Amino acid sequence: MKNKASLTWREKLHEVIYEADTAKGKTFDVLLLILILLSVFFVVIESITGLDDWVYTFLFYAEWVVTILFSLEYIARIISIKHPKKYIFSFYGIIDFLSTIPLYLSFFLAGSTAFLTFRALRLLRIFRILKVTRYIGEGNKLAAALKNSKAKIFVFLYAVVILSLIAGTLMYLIEGKDSGFTSIPIGIYWTIVTLTTVGFGDIHPVTPLGQFLASIIMILGYGIIAVPTGIVSAEYSKSAKPQALNNTQSCYNCGQEKHLDSAKYCNNCGYSLNKDE
Amino acid sequence: MKNKASLTWREKLHEVIYEADTAKGKTFDVLLLILILLSVFFVVIESITGLDDWVYTFLFYAEWVVTILFSLEYIARIISIKHPKKYIFSFYGIIDFLSTIPLYLSFFLAGSTAFLTFRALRLLRIFRILKVTRYIGEGNKLAAALKNSKAKIFVFLYAVVILSLIAGTLMYLIEGKDSGFTSIPIGIYWTIVTLTTVGFGDIHPVTPLGQFLASIIMILGYGIIAVPTGIVSAEYSKSAKPQALNNTQSCYNCGQEKHLDSAKYCNNCGYSLNKDE
Amino acid sequence: MKNKASLTWREKLHEVIYEADTAKGKTFDVLLLILILLSVFFVVIESITGLDDWVYTFLFYAEWVVTILFSLEYIARIISIKHPKKYIFSFYGIIDFLSTIPLYLSFFLAGSTAFLTFRALRLLRIFRILKVTRYIGEGNKLAAALKNSKAKIFVFLYAVVILSLIAGTLMYLIEGKDSGFTSIPIGIYWTIVTLTTVGFGDIHPVTPLGQFLASIIMILGYGIIAVPTGIVSAEYSKSAKPQALNNTQSCYNCGQEKHLDSAKYCNNCGYSLNKDE
Amino acid sequence: MKNKASLTWREKLHEVIYEADTAKGKTFDVLLLILILLSVFFVVIESITGLDDWVYTFLFYAEWVVTILFSLEYIARIISIKHPKKYIFSFYGIIDFLSTIPLYLSFFLAGSTAFLTFRALRLLRIFRILKVTRYIGEGNKLAAALKNSKAKIFVFLYAVVILSLIAGTLMYLIEGKDSGFTSIPIGIYWTIVTLTTVGFGDIHPVTPLGQFLASIIMILGYGIIAVPTGIVSAEYSKSAKPQALNNTQSCYNCGQEKHLDSAKYCNNCGYSLNKDE
Repeated sequence: MKNKASLTWREKLHEVIYEADTAKGKTFDVLLLILILLSVFFVVIESITGLDDWVYTFLFYAEWVVTILFSLEYIARIISIKHPKKYIFSFYGIIDFLSTIPLYLSFFLAGSTAFLTFRALRLLRIFRILKVTRYIGEGNKLAAALKNSKAKIFVFLYAVVILSLIAGTLMYLIEGKDSGFTSIPIGIYWTIVTLTTVGFGDIHPVTPLGQFLASIIMILGYGIIAVPTGIVSAEYSKSAKPQALNNTQSCYNCGQEKHLDSAKYCNNCGYSLNKDE
Repeated sequence: MKNKASLTWREKLHEVIYEADTAKGKTFDVLLLILILLSVFFVVIESITGLDDWVYTFLFYAEWVVTILFSLEYIARIISIKHPKKYIFSFYGIIDFLSTIPLYLSFFLAGSTAFLTFRALRLLRIFRILKVTRYIGEGNKLAAALKNSKAKIFVFLYAVVILSLIAGTLMYLIEGKDSGFTSIPIGIYWTIVTLTTVGFGDIHPVTPLGQFLASIIMILGYGIIAVPTGIVSAEYSKSAKPQALNNTQSCYNCGQEKHLDSAKYCNNCGYSLNKDE
Repeated sequence: MKNKASLTWREKLHEVIYEADTAKGKTFDVLLLILILLSVFFVVIESITGLDDWVYTFLFYAEWVVTILFSLEYIARIISIKHPKKYIFSFYGIIDFLSTIPLYLSFFLAGSTAFLTFRALRLLRIFRILKVTRYIGEGNKLAAALKNSKAKIFVFLYAVVILSLIAGTLMYLIEGKDSGFTSIPIGIYWTIVTLTTVGFGDIHPVTPLGQFLASIIMILGYGIIAVPTGIVSAEYSKSAKPQALNNTQSCYNCGQEKHLDSAKYCNNCGYSLNKDE
Repeated sequence: MKNKASLTWREKLHEVIYEADTAKGKTFDVLLLILILLSVFFVVIESITGLDDWVYTFLFYAEWVVTILFSLEYIARIISIKHPKKYIFSFYGIIDFLSTIPLYLSFFLAGSTAFLTFRALRLLRIFRILKVTRYIGEGNKLAAALKNSKAKIFVFLYAVVILSLIAGTLMYLIEGKDSGFTSIPIGIYWTIVTLTTVGFGDIHPVTPLGQFLASIIMILGYGIIAVPTGIVSAEYSKSAKPQALNNTQSCYNCGQEKHLDSAKYCNNCGYSLNKDE
């Protein structure tokens, strides 16, 4: 990094916008987060009907202020970065763009303002401020666990889909239109509602045979919830295990490895482990 | 395998139909999968009422095309295999047969077309294409875990059934017909709905005593979901354990592998493991 | 055991009734199980209304036959055992008594026949036949796991009760009688329904504040389901661990224990482990 | 502790109120617990409508008796302790105060008596009597597990909130006011109800697209329940691990404990651990 005084304004802007380590950068990120939270809050409140008129008027103007600020931020991000294309087509670049455009579109298309809630995705930026590395680390661990379990998850989801397809058809055949099972897709929807133990109750079996099949589906759903849990538990345990004795110190005398972190002497030959520390 | 040129047409057919490794075999499997997906999609769509007439007409003909193609495939499979009986009475053989027969039967029996969704089971063939060994391997692991836990699962299911029987009867006695508990089987059905935390709400207790018993059943159900989860987790951990012995040291004398990390002498021949360290 | 011929009739009876190992004993147990299953089936069917009259007539007589057979069995069990009191006041003794008495009571008290379903508990006898030791072993493991986790389970249940009490009161205060929260006990019942993720939907919050509190309760319930699961998983893992290296063989030369089951030589001193085998 | 006879009355009072080890202290705690249970029971019963008039009259007076006794206890606690402020602003001090004040407030404010259920929190005192250390120990373990998983739990809750926000908005856009999704907050509430697999059914999707999205949310919810479970299981396993180092061997030279089972020399001072074996 160059000497502060010699930085161009673009470099200074880059430091403020893209870096969370400096005081200014952190302040910028916190202000941005508050703005994002406010904007999401506005969109959510706006959807409620029956509030006083001044609320909607206030929200209308507040929305425009937020959108203009977001637009300025978007332009600043493009200007201050070396490779603007890399940012524009990055995950956050697309999210930032989608966060500003709906309000402008609302001049032409009714209803598009509702998409403003995609701004919620911008909240993911929170990770940059809150001790980034730590929380991102947790996210990466989770992502790694999911990646390792890809095959397991595929088999599990595939089984759920096949099961829903078959059970949904059977329920449609058994219960029929009178019980609300008006088509096979509705049957599949009901099976997913039941298999995942959600159970809305908007549709439910009324014939004895349907209730019997439903019971089997429920017990199946109750049982196979153990599969994703078992997968995640196993992955977490696996990733936790190496930490138990991943001490890389090896004895200079006998080469013994896997000492306790607190060990001072080799547990195999008694030679001191602290020689050159 | 013989030289390609010298293969009879039956052998060539066999290679295309039964082998997923060759280019032709893979193409055949992919085409078959698309056909299966389409056929399942057709059956599901056909069950929806209120669509335009041309859709039903189109589906009627599409159904026949698919069924004839499936029939040809079925015949080709029987012709090209050495031991047709082995195929016919195999899992896939029966599924393939059940996938074609319902439409023919629909000449004689109304409603049998709905069974066409059993074609969904043919989707299991997908495993043959998608890096078979890997996914089948996961399935086998799961199957092995289930087999090992057979006794545990039996005890668990048995407890659920006994519990449902007793709780269902008590709820029938306490709540009675006014609350919808019209018979003991309905009480058992309700208990399963509640114990598995599905909770449709079509039937629910209204008396204080019934609500108290329901609360106990719910907490029980909330608690015993831990049992299948614990079983699967334990099985997964067990199958993961052999890695605890993934020590790569092999004995110079007898080649024995899988020593304890702390072993100094080969546990097979007694030769020192530390020779050249 | 004495020579077969010299057994008194009481000893012979005892062998048939109480021992599942002999051919006659096994036959007796299987017949008894079928009878129990039938009797449970009869009680369940009898509760269904709207069947043909002959069904109820048949069930009436069948019930009497079953009850008389059970009474004879009960008397035979008392006669053939040395210490009848021990049997009468044992778990199965009480269940056997409760299985027969309701029908006799029905002469005097209406409605008591419904209690006949307690016969379902007699089904627990199934464990005696199906490779007893194995399944009982699983049950004992489960019981041991539960006993070890007693303190954990107490804390967990206590937290659930306190939470239900407080959340139930808050919901009663927030939602009030109009939403169906007619009293604090109803509020507690609703909290349990929600916390266990059952969610009947017979009562549900309608005010924004109530829905907000409900959301928190649901996420809490979703989260704390992990506690019993974690407890059971941990107990199962603990009980599974000793099996990893519970080899009791110790080296005759250096006393080293914990060898792999397949070890032939001590991993500490290289001395043969197979000396006297 | 001073000689019993020489204790001032304040010291005697302190011993009775604050110490659960002495006979008098234990008696006091048990009486207090019964009183707390009774008071909670009174408040719960009072909320039920339609009981006989004498019940409400009885509860009115019982409530006053309990409150006066609690007030006396509160004053006694303040008098008998050296640093009253420490008690007053402690967790239990605040709870004790909140347990007595509502009834006095009811002279001025209607409805405040309902807050009396906060007395339920006083039930937490039960831990002091029931083999305190043991159960508190379990609670501490749980608290430690939660503290260690803070980052994981934050990421998990954050994901649930973001997901609810986005899915809730989408459902509001897709289903609209006709299906009961009257605003985005309602959509978010519905998403939480569905994601946690509670599923009241008071609001449910009716359009095919809404049902499709709901299916995805349900499967997601069914899957991510594995995350808190995995977290807790992993933490429990971790806390169970130290037992892997519960080797009771202590070095004769320096007294160091917690050696690896396979250690031959003290990992602290290098002294041989095998001296007298």
